[in-house]
Order: sequence, then structure tokens, then C-alpha cells
Amino acid sequence: MAVRLYVEEGLAEGGALELGPEQTHYLAHVMRLGPGDCVHLFNGRDGEWETVIEKILKKRARVMPRQCRRAQETLPDLWLLFAPIKRNRIENLVEKATELGVVHLKPVITERTEVKRVNEKRLKAHAIEAAEQTERLSVPEIGAAEPLESVLAAWPAARRLLLCDETGGGPPILEALAEAGPGSWALLTGPEGGFAPAELDRLRRLPFITAASLGPRVLRADTAAVAAMTCWQTVLGDWQRRPSFRFEETPSPKAAGKP
Amino acid sequence: MAVRLYVEEGLAEGGALELGPEQTHYLAHVMRLGPGDCVHLFNGRDGEWETVIEKILKKRARVMPRQCRRAQETLPDLWLLFAPIKRNRIENLVEKATELGVVHLKPVITERTEVKRVNEKRLKAHAIEAAEQTERLSVPEIGAAEPLESVLAAWPAARRLLLCDETGGGPPILEALAEAGPGSWALLTGPEGGFAPAELDRLRRLPFITAASLGPRVLRADTAAVAAMTCWQTVLGDWQRRPSFRFEETPSPKAAGKP
Repeated sequence: MAVRLYVEEGLAEGGALELGPEQTHYLAHVMRLGPGDCVHLFNGRDGEWETVIEKILKKRARVMPRQCRRAQETLPDLWLLFAPIKRNRIENLVEKATELGVVHLKPVITERTEVKRVNEKRLKAHAIEAAEQTERLSVPEIGAAEPLESVLAAWPAARRLLLCDETGGGPPILEALAEAGPGSWALLTGPEGGFAPAELDRLRRLPFITAASLGPRVLRADTAAVAAMTCWQTVLGDWQRRPSFRFEETPSPKAAGKP
Repeated sequence: MAVRLYVEEGLAEGGALELGPEQTHYLAHVMRLGPGDCVHLFNGRDGEWETVIEKILKKRARVMPRQCRRAQETLPDLWLLFAPIKRNRIENLVEKATELGVVHLKPVITERTEVKRVNEKRLKAHAIEAAEQTERLSVPEIGAAEPLESVLAAWPAARRLLLCDETGGGPPILEALAEAGPGSWALLTGPEGGFAPAELDRLRRLPFITAASLGPRVLRADTAAVAAMTCWQTVLGDWQRRPSFRFEETPSPKAAGKP
């Protein structure tokens, strides 16, 4: 398997890139690659490119895009709003959300949220690593942590918000999703202690909310989020599609004539 | 929230129990409980019992069951067969499987499984902890690790086996499950490197296999397992049910007359 790295810069044929100290260290000392070796790069906009290492110095490496291996894909428009949880669980959650194709992640502080400080930069690093390791062509945005109240006050009316109601207040999740139908969505999961009763009441009355039950058992906050993301992708997302890129390369039109 | 502990012994009114050193330490020094305090016990057979601590010594504690709080529940008949993965991921997987109601977990060694040694005792401890913390009334069995070949050779014909086919070989998972219908099931997930092509071919030809696709993205082994367990519970399991015990106590007939 070729090494895959996420970059911020644009990717195009002939447009050389310079990689920074961390990625250079990774290529040279962890993967033991050198000039002439191949690295796959993606940036969330230009697809995945096969690039060749031209030069490796101590703190930077120069790579040259050779051909586009996969065209950029568009993911279903799914956000995840989640009450922050303990460090290893929140990192796990970001990893899973990246694998499950969420485009935007937003920590929201609810009444019973005990973890109030979120290191968005660290979460971003986890998202990048998860995208690099699982063939994803983009990295989810990580929004700044914000009180749920103010997120709801500024909510875009056209986006439905699935309330994962651990008290079983809504219909079973598959039914709730199928009935509400496709479109732009966000999922909302609470903290370890759940939503406060008054918070749940208020949420249920908002016009953009779809409440759903995740079965009869208690799920931890991170499990509930993974379950909800899975259900959404199966019912309203793109799980009808197959992992086509594992069988065929999708070269860009530009690169198609090359050997 | 009352402390919940799993015990092996039978639970019945008036049948005092002795807890061992670890649970005694936990009660006395972590939770700082003493004589007269209440502990909830479950054993996977007799429901959940409210018990009172009668005596706490250095290495053992005596507790007396007072009344049954919840009748024993029967879980849907779902097993999970999984290729062992790295330590923190396998522990996470056992935790999630416990929350998601799996009754039997079995590590299976596939062609590309790199982790060949499994500490079943440690996994059991994780399952117990997950059950204690999430209101589950039982602990999943953890089978001994075994080559997939020999597990398949002795497979009970009446139990369907869902092959989570990361190459997208089967229909989308919700369709595959709905078409195959209810009954006794097991889910099978591969190692980080996936199933070998010959292994997949062989699996797909077995009469008890239902192959399913988990969408267009690469999922890590543990994510695939959580997604598959979720889908199974929503389509064929008990996710039509609500978490009723959060709203009402279900005393046993015996205890019903008590205050």
C-alpha cells in the first residue's frame, strides 16, 4: 500500500509541492522513502494524486504530482454535533466519524457536559490520520466548541437535526430517518450523563428536530454516535454505493492518456 | 446512580453473598461504601437485585439481596466472530459489542490476521465492566480464539453468518439482513488487512453465509463490527423496543408485595 498524506496545497500536474518537517520525517524515517519513491496526496478538492519524491532534506521534501489516481468525490451532507467526552473516547469518535463520512464535526456543550475544554487542533490531527489511513479523499472540518444553546439559536432552518434520544422518546432510528427523508442533516448526541429533561423537552419542540430512539440498551455517548452515523448512511447516505476504487483506478481526464 | 456489579453466584431473597477482594476494594475504597449501603447485583440469570452491604472486611464483603429490581431479559440471539486486532481496538470492540447486546463473542484467526494471541480473560473483564456500566443484565461469553477454518467446519447449520465484505461483494447491509430475515445470527468481520480473496470466495459459497456491503468507504475492522452490530439490531434485533427500565421499576413477583 502506498503512503497517503493529506496536504493543504492545490494538486495539479507539474505543480511541485514542499512538505513540512513532520511529513518529511514520516516519509524519510518512518516509511524510509527517498527520491524516486511514490507518495499519494489528497487535499479534499483535487482528488488523489500519485506524486514522486524529488528531493528529501532534513526538514522538507519536494514532491511532484504525476497523475490523478482518483477524482474528488462528494460526500453526503452529514454533520455530527456531539457533547465532548473523555479524551480517548473523543479521539475515537473523531476517527469513526471520519471513516463514516461525516463532513463537519462540532463539539457542543450541553447542560450535563463535564468535559468543557476541547483541543480542536488535536482532534483535527486525528481526523487527518483517519482520512489518510482509510482512503478518504477529504478531512472533516472540526468546528469550535460552543454551547448547544447558541448553536441552536443560529441553526440553518433547512438542515434537519437528529436528536439521539437515550430515553427512547422518538421512534426507532431507521423509521425516523426514513420518514424524515433525504437532505442536509446533522446528528446530535449527548454527554455521558445524557441530556437534561428540560433540554430534551426544548429540543423536541424545535421545528428542525427529528427525535429517534437507539434501542432498549444504554449506549455510551461514542457508541450512540457511531450507531447513529451508521444508520444515517445506510438509510439516507451513500451505503447503496460500493467501494469501486478498490477494483478500478479512476484517472482524471488529464492523466488518462498517460501510460 | 447505584453501584452495579456482576457476580457469578445465584441471586435470591435472603441468600447472602460474599464478594471477593477486587469487588470489596472497589466498594470500600473506590466508591467509599460501607455497611447499610446499597449495591445492585446481576448474574445473567436472576435479574438485577438490590442488595445491602452487611459487613465489609479487608478482602471480602457480605451482601444481602433485598429485592429484585429488574426481571432477567432475553437478548436477541446474536454472535460476533471477529479477527483479533490490536489491543486497544479489541478492548474497544468488546465494550461496544457488550453495549450493543451481542451474547457471544468469538475471536477467529483468518489468513491475514496478524494478532494471533488473544487474552480472553482480559476481554472478559472488559465485557463485565461494560455490562456493569451500561445497565446490561448479562455479560457476553468470550469464546477461545480459533482458526476461522475450524469454526466454519463445525458451524451450526441453523445459524446464519453475515459476512461483512469490505470489497463490496454483497448487497447493502440493510437489504441483505431484511431479505435473509430473523433467526439466530452471527456477524463476521475480518482483520485490518481484510479477508484474502480465496477466503472470501470460499466464504461466499457456504450455504449459511449472507454477504453484505458496508458502503463505499474503507472502515477499520472495529468500526465495521460496530456498524454491522448496529444494523443487525435495527433490522432483526430489538431496536423496536424502548429503554423501559429507565422509567419504571420491574419488581419480581416475589418482591412485588414489599414496600
